[in-house]
Amino acid sequence: VMAAFIIANGAASMGSKVTIFFTFWGLNVLRRENPPSVPKGILDRMFGWMMPRGPKRLTLSKMHMGGMGTAMMKHVMKSKNVMTLPELVQGALDSGVRLVACAMSMDVMGIHRDELIDGVEFGGVASYLDTADEGKVNLFI
Amino acid sequence: VMAAFIIANGAASMGSKVTIFFTFWGLNVLRRENPPSVPKGILDRMFGWMMPRGPKRLTLSKMHMGGMGTAMMKHVMKSKNVMTLPELVQGALDSGVRLVACAMSMDVMGIHRDELIDGVEFGGVASYLDTADEGKVNLFI
Amino acid sequence: VMAAFIIANGAASMGSKVTIFFTFWGLNVLRRENPPSVPKGILDRMFGWMMPRGPKRLTLSKMHMGGMGTAMMKHVMKSKNVMTLPELVQGALDSGVRLVACAMSMDVMGIHRDELIDGVEFGGVASYLDTADEGKVNLFI
Repeated sequence: VMAAFIIANGAASMGSKVTIFFTFWGLNVLRRENPPSVPKGILDRMFGWMMPRGPKRLTLSKMHMGGMGTAMMKHVMKSKNVMTLPELVQGALDSGVRLVACAMSMDVMGIHRDELIDGVEFGGVASYLDTADEGKVNLFI
Repeated sequence: VMAAFIIANGAASMGSKVTIFFTFWGLNVLRRENPPSVPKGILDRMFGWMMPRGPKRLTLSKMHMGGMGTAMMKHVMKSKNVMTLPELVQGALDSGVRLVACAMSMDVMGIHRDELIDGVEFGGVASYLDTADEGKVNLFI
Repeated sequence: VMAAFIIANGAASMGSKVTIFFTFWGLNVLRRENPPSVPKGILDRMFGWMMPRGPKRLTLSKMHMGGMGTAMMKHVMKSKNVMTLPELVQGALDSGVRLVACAMSMDVMGIHRDELIDGVEFGGVASYLDTADEGKVNLFI
């Protein structure tokens, strides 16, 4: 997620049009910390409860070590003036990066539109492919 | 694997020519459930024995939780009418998506051609690069 | 890492210009086995100490199994005359593949230039994007 937003924000600052498409676990980045209550079935509720809500709660993909590694990385990034993940997400929105949530993944994981942050768009694989076809650099991260 | 096949099938249905190249662990997607017996060395046999055989036996990359998470995801996908992975693989073959198995990975992991499903082609890195050079969208998943 | 270098070396041997950009954990591939002593803060020292130093010490992304899986894979690759990872890295340098270390990741993880192998270049996201814009095939691995 760090890599995605650093590349996206870098490209936006260099004048490129940028779209990030979020599928499956990637949707967690876009979840509100305090979502409104939404009527859900039991399985959807369980998915929502088990997955991290928003960028603040994401953990390192490696060396998380029960929280120690992630805390250490956050501390180091702050002390070295690297933007944190929540700052990167806000920066992306501010510089016009389009954040598109995969509608099918939202359906599978039982995530409602109201549970995602403001400014997010919604689309499917066709929308992704149309955008990708026009792009010069296209990564699966 | 889900993402790869959803994108591939989507692109094929939109009229694009699609090739998926399978290396290392990715080869497990193409394995037959009940492969013919093939003479093998002990290490090749161990590799084959330890790795999942075919799309039905693949597990979630996150939240597998000893099988519970994967079972839950399959249940949810079925109840929401999302195609399962075996259906996606068959759908890809039916709509002309080329499935190419990496010959070098097959050699390293001791997987024989007869152990892979029908319709699979075989190639190396040169074959991948030739195809990628012509393509517009190219992802490593 | 295997896939990255096999594709990179393949492309180089087919006459393409190839650049690999290393961020975060990817930097471990470029670390010297016996780096010179460098003055560091305690956290930087911890990061350096916890992460694998160089390609010889990298482990399988799946089925590492406390070292057994990785050892088995190395054994099999040697017996089947597949190039090992250290050989692939040297091969890439020999055939003119540019290896670029992400300067920001180096800063975050407290890795100094002297701790990386000879022949490595240094750059940021802008340098990556400039190269990617010119390229035909561009993967995030």
